[in-house]
Amino acid sequence: MVERNKSIRIGMIGYQFMGKAHSHAYRDLPFYFDNPLKPELKVIAGRNESAVKEAQEKFGWESYETDWLKVIERDDIDVIDIVTPNHTHAEIAIAAAEAGKHIITEKPLALTVDEAQKMLEAVKKNNVKHMICHNYRFVPAVQFAKKLIEEGKIGRVFHYRANYLQDFIIDPNFPLVWRLKKEVSGSGALGDIGAHSLDLARFLIGEFSEVTATMETFIKQRPIGEMTGGLSAKGDSSKMGEVTVDDAVAVIARFENGALGTFEATRFAGGNRNKNKFEINGKKGSIRWDMENMNNLEVYFADDAEGEQGFRLINCTEETHPYAGAYWPAGHIIGYEHTFIHLIDEFLRGIAGDYQPAPNFEDGVKNQILLEAIEKSAEERRWIKLD
Amino acid sequence: MVERNKSIRIGMIGYQFMGKAHSHAYRDLPFYFDNPLKPELKVIAGRNESAVKEAQEKFGWESYETDWLKVIERDDIDVIDIVTPNHTHAEIAIAAAEAGKHIITEKPLALTVDEAQKMLEAVKKNNVKHMICHNYRFVPAVQFAKKLIEEGKIGRVFHYRANYLQDFIIDPNFPLVWRLKKEVSGSGALGDIGAHSLDLARFLIGEFSEVTATMETFIKQRPIGEMTGGLSAKGDSSKMGEVTVDDAVAVIARFENGALGTFEATRFAGGNRNKNKFEINGKKGSIRWDMENMNNLEVYFADDAEGEQGFRLINCTEETHPYAGAYWPAGHIIGYEHTFIHLIDEFLRGIAGDYQPAPNFEDGVKNQILLEAIEKSAEERRWIKLD
Amino acid sequence: MVERNKSIRIGMIGYQFMGKAHSHAYRDLPFYFDNPLKPELKVIAGRNESAVKEAQEKFGWESYETDWLKVIERDDIDVIDIVTPNHTHAEIAIAAAEAGKHIITEKPLALTVDEAQKMLEAVKKNNVKHMICHNYRFVPAVQFAKKLIEEGKIGRVFHYRANYLQDFIIDPNFPLVWRLKKEVSGSGALGDIGAHSLDLARFLIGEFSEVTATMETFIKQRPIGEMTGGLSAKGDSSKMGEVTVDDAVAVIARFENGALGTFEATRFAGGNRNKNKFEINGKKGSIRWDMENMNNLEVYFADDAEGEQGFRLINCTEETHPYAGAYWPAGHIIGYEHTFIHLIDEFLRGIAGDYQPAPNFEDGVKNQILLEAIEKSAEERRWIKLD
Amino acid sequence: MVERNKSIRIGMIGYQFMGKAHSHAYRDLPFYFDNPLKPELKVIAGRNESAVKEAQEKFGWESYETDWLKVIERDDIDVIDIVTPNHTHAEIAIAAAEAGKHIITEKPLALTVDEAQKMLEAVKKNNVKHMICHNYRFVPAVQFAKKLIEEGKIGRVFHYRANYLQDFIIDPNFPLVWRLKKEVSGSGALGDIGAHSLDLARFLIGEFSEVTATMETFIKQRPIGEMTGGLSAKGDSSKMGEVTVDDAVAVIARFENGALGTFEATRFAGGNRNKNKFEINGKKGSIRWDMENMNNLEVYFADDAEGEQGFRLINCTEETHPYAGAYWPAGHIIGYEHTFIHLIDEFLRGIAGDYQPAPNFEDGVKNQILLEAIEKSAEERRWIKLD
Repeated sequence: MVERNKSIRIGMIGYQFMGKAHSHAYRDLPFYFDNPLKPELKVIAGRNESAVKEAQEKFGWESYETDWLKVIERDDIDVIDIVTPNHTHAEIAIAAAEAGKHIITEKPLALTVDEAQKMLEAVKKNNVKHMICHNYRFVPAVQFAKKLIEEGKIGRVFHYRANYLQDFIIDPNFPLVWRLKKEVSGSGALGDIGAHSLDLARFLIGEFSEVTATMETFIKQRPIGEMTGGLSAKGDSSKMGEVTVDDAVAVIARFENGALGTFEATRFAGGNRNKNKFEINGKKGSIRWDMENMNNLEVYFADDAEGEQGFRLINCTEETHPYAGAYWPAGHIIGYEHTFIHLIDEFLRGIAGDYQPAPNFEDGVKNQILLEAIEKSAEERRWIKLD
Repeated sequence: MVERNKSIRIGMIGYQFMGKAHSHAYRDLPFYFDNPLKPELKVIAGRNESAVKEAQEKFGWESYETDWLKVIERDDIDVIDIVTPNHTHAEIAIAAAEAGKHIITEKPLALTVDEAQKMLEAVKKNNVKHMICHNYRFVPAVQFAKKLIEEGKIGRVFHYRANYLQDFIIDPNFPLVWRLKKEVSGSGALGDIGAHSLDLARFLIGEFSEVTATMETFIKQRPIGEMTGGLSAKGDSSKMGEVTVDDAVAVIARFENGALGTFEATRFAGGNRNKNKFEINGKKGSIRWDMENMNNLEVYFADDAEGEQGFRLINCTEETHPYAGAYWPAGHIIGYEHTFIHLIDEFLRGIAGDYQPAPNFEDGVKNQILLEAIEKSAEERRWIKLD
Repeated sequence: MVERNKSIRIGMIGYQFMGKAHSHAYRDLPFYFDNPLKPELKVIAGRNESAVKEAQEKFGWESYETDWLKVIERDDIDVIDIVTPNHTHAEIAIAAAEAGKHIITEKPLALTVDEAQKMLEAVKKNNVKHMICHNYRFVPAVQFAKKLIEEGKIGRVFHYRANYLQDFIIDPNFPLVWRLKKEVSGSGALGDIGAHSLDLARFLIGEFSEVTATMETFIKQRPIGEMTGGLSAKGDSSKMGEVTVDDAVAVIARFENGALGTFEATRFAGGNRNKNKFEINGKKGSIRWDMENMNNLEVYFADDAEGEQGFRLINCTEETHPYAGAYWPAGHIIGYEHTFIHLIDEFLRGIAGDYQPAPNFEDGVKNQILLEAIEKSAEERRWIKLD
Repeated sequence: MVERNKSIRIGMIGYQFMGKAHSHAYRDLPFYFDNPLKPELKVIAGRNESAVKEAQEKFGWESYETDWLKVIERDDIDVIDIVTPNHTHAEIAIAAAEAGKHIITEKPLALTVDEAQKMLEAVKKNNVKHMICHNYRFVPAVQFAKKLIEEGKIGRVFHYRANYLQDFIIDPNFPLVWRLKKEVSGSGALGDIGAHSLDLARFLIGEFSEVTATMETFIKQRPIGEMTGGLSAKGDSSKMGEVTVDDAVAVIARFENGALGTFEATRFAGGNRNKNKFEINGKKGSIRWDMENMNNLEVYFADDAEGEQGFRLINCTEETHPYAGAYWPAGHIIGYEHTFIHLIDEFLRGIAGDYQPAPNFEDGVKNQILLEAIEKSAEERRWIKLD
């Protein structure tokens, strides 16, 4: 057991969108929460020296490296945080585990189940703590939903219905960034956003038993383009390359508890910038949530008085709501970045208290198994059992 | 006491927007409700013969008249329904009362309190039933709100907050129709739509004790134009006339029960076609309603469990909700026109059961007193007490 | 061509929920619309004499019959309107066609594709007009959505996403009504409500090319109970019978135009009384609609100015919106029952103008083919092509 | 002009709710924004040593003081940030100005106009930069509203309608905290939350010309209680004290540009935790905003095509929206605390660039004049002109 307020030294590999989100979380954690460990932002790594140096300064890291291996080799690092593109997760995580570092990695865990399982074996063998960044679990409203479900407030679950809708690649001139290349990202909408929906379902109502799915790539060729420049990037349309991942995926699932699930993830749903939502219907109640209004949870209780039944719009910013008490008075909402603070709070508590927090590499493997089953189902046009 | 399913013979004076709404209500009443009286649509009156004849045929009246007095003189008429412009209500209603007819009239009751009181005296002296068409009282969700309040579900009331927002005369070329002339309509937004908000407040939480107000006419000259042609009518901009009523009114009120009220009525709130809404805050709960989604009532109960509190979105289409059981299964919504069916159902039950239904001319007088107090307050720039 | 305002004589077979909705529509049609034909409500038929007599009086029919064949045999009937349970549609419709009557029937057309095709052959052979009551096509907001799509306003369609959620049979004591017996209703949530979603999809974006699906019956035994008593009916729990239809169905579909579809229909989604909704995502825009707020259409246009993009909440009650001009000023909403008025308006225009309106028995057959494909897919656990 | 990335040394006086919000903002500013100045959190002051020490550690300040004067006397401090109760603002600010420090203070500026004006004189005389924390101006959606208005997108303004609704003191056992004592806080709902609404109105549409108002204290005696313990604090009901501020206030206002305003601020609106909202109606469009969903702006444009008009729900998280580009991809929302980051960003840019940012003490004085006019109007029951 680590003593209270002892430092924990972080080395981060990668520095883009997720690097920024994780960096911020480490910085803000002690401000809001009494975590037994206080993160020290020791080193951030990336191949592009000027870019990683800029990130180091802006995000407040003590130093930077251009070779990730050096970060792992350093003795003054307790935790490796992996925020690189998906195809590099396995190699880095396994090296970090071998070096005895605790590991937190972005999702999806890996490109394949095989890789993912090797990663899980490595962390288990080396007895390090591990976590995967399914950050949406840590929205207070989602945590509160989990609590309601665990307390039996909605009863036996009949339906889980999830959409994750984005719209940033509808323009055919949006370039062939790494997220659109199978060898780097593993899959498209499925692994990038669908993976979150699948994890939330597992978190909230339990394991899948089988799936059937279809996948589609609406725009099959795109201009080859730089990966920088944000979502409004334009490629050079004179050089076209093949999109090798899905633009959209639809899944029907069955759960071990008998519930029926439907899932859809797409980057072609105009007007939905980041519409990550779910609805759960149970015998005693229903729950609805939508990331674009993430502080709200809509809850229906079937045993409310007749005539007075209806979805309640609960603003999960009260002291009684998970994590919310650390912030502002009720009604003052928080945002996307807080999910990472909560996740890292849990991670460091696991390290400090010597328990294995979740979601972790086991969840990552299960998520990967699901992703692979869905891809297989889409390819072979049949139901795939999970076991 | 009239026997069950006996006919009651209706004579209607006027035939435009409200004539259509009332005509429809008489026709639909027996279809949905077991009212002891069955309306017979005997005669409809209007000065423009071709127009009233068209209305007679379309709305299903047996006959028409071009002289309203003839309708009142007919022996085969039990009820006079007045849907003419406001300045004619008093003369017609008093004549109808003298002739021993039951009377239902559109709001506002009259142009002045004095007129309104004479109307009330006339119906009392002649012992006829009377009703004023504050139809929004009869939305199932509003009736349900009333029930919740009467059952003490929201406790002592602190606040009543109402807006009635429309936007149909923002265009300066919208012509100088009768609703914009004081001598015909009495007032503008105040009497036309604000009157509804004031009536709902009285219905739901009780009597006003004092008011302070301001009124504004944003566009003071408009093209003189025909009154026909609907809301998209255009006037002849070469001949301009003065707008003599308010475009908007704002009121602060105090109620006898200690509650604070705020009211606003305007025809200059772009994007709000018919946004008639209120929110009531009490010690134990709050209620919100909006006519544009009239089937929904939002209700908050302060004694819901901690963390599970939130406005419930109640779709008032269940058998348990007032009037709703007469229609369709839960979740199948009804519309604006049903408010008139319910109001006329109540009116005819009053006639059949020999009780005086509400809202009636007493309510009309009280509403008129409020309208006059508000105008006076706006003119004299001071609080006016109601007593 | 029938002359203007000529009567058309209706005979209705059945008298429950749908009988009420259709009866009302015939009554209200001439009030709101200038249809060339004026319906005469001649006769209503049902086996239970006291019940049909009550319906005849309440709904305003001239006469009643207890034998439906007599209605078809009558010379003074032009149209047969079929609102009986699903297993009787085929026999009645074929007899009506042979008798030369125009036919309007509730959905689904029949219990099987085979039956449905025989019905289609019969109406074609006898050269009568035919219609199937997919009434949700006739919501003004849905008609407006159709118009936007046809005008190319949302461009190439990527996604069609529909849910039809109800919750009236979650209670295990809800009795084994006819809608829960396969031999009477054909299927459960699929045919009752899912059929509407499938029809809307075909109406709005075109034909399906293949489907994969799953179906579930969450409560497999229910008390044998009377079919009367409405949605709050309770059965006699001492006598249990088997539920032979689906409680819920989930479908993934592909359309001929390349769009991806997801559909879900269930009666086990607590808090959703009649949540019939869809979202369509296209290259240039998106559309969302929900029957519980049926007057509203949410529309997103990708070519709105940067920063000013967002779903517009359009209240489809303006003169410019389909059918809406016949009612009230903008912002005064209409309800469920109006869908039937519009549908019958179209049906009678078809008869008067000698064109075949839609949706008709061709649509009914196509819908039945879809229902059968979905059931087959669920049973055989594989994709089924439609051709 | 200060050079880029030069430090600016902050001394904060006070350490509770607002101390936390400001501290966080200084910490996060360089993470998200390229401000020319980098705040150093030098010292935080408070009278309660253990409490201020805890705040110092948690919020990340270098040192603490128990005497605020010492902070002002320190040479190594450039900025004084005042987050103490309202009655202390004037003394501290004037001392800070005399010491040549730049000043940022919480609102309201002071307890009286007189005090406020002295503060303004002091900052002017000493030529220091000054700012008042009307943080809601800095919500990206509000900044975007401002931009739309300035570009003429909604045209001449007719109406400004604002509510600020809270519900945290409805329980009569909530203790007599400092916010309920006039000598400490100046006023109640008016100065605490109403002041924000008034400032937003000035920011968005311009200056007030006159007001009429009423104020109410619904619960006149409360248990004397500790000020700590948060919103769920309970007092000792055996010792009661008088509430000397308003629980609620309602205002009708007129603006110099001819617009009509209505304002309401209350702590007695059950279910509204922090419902700070406004609607603006102009000739060419309308704008709606609500702090509980602060990332969304609803905008209506009257010149959208006929039939396609409706409020657009704009999620102001795009790169094009003010401040939003510093955070996450579109659709990933931010929260309450970011308003302070933006405000302090502007403050430090003013210091660095030697311009006087807004809102500043001039705005504070104007706000105070409004507060005083409203109180006077409520007391004297008459309109008060502002000049």
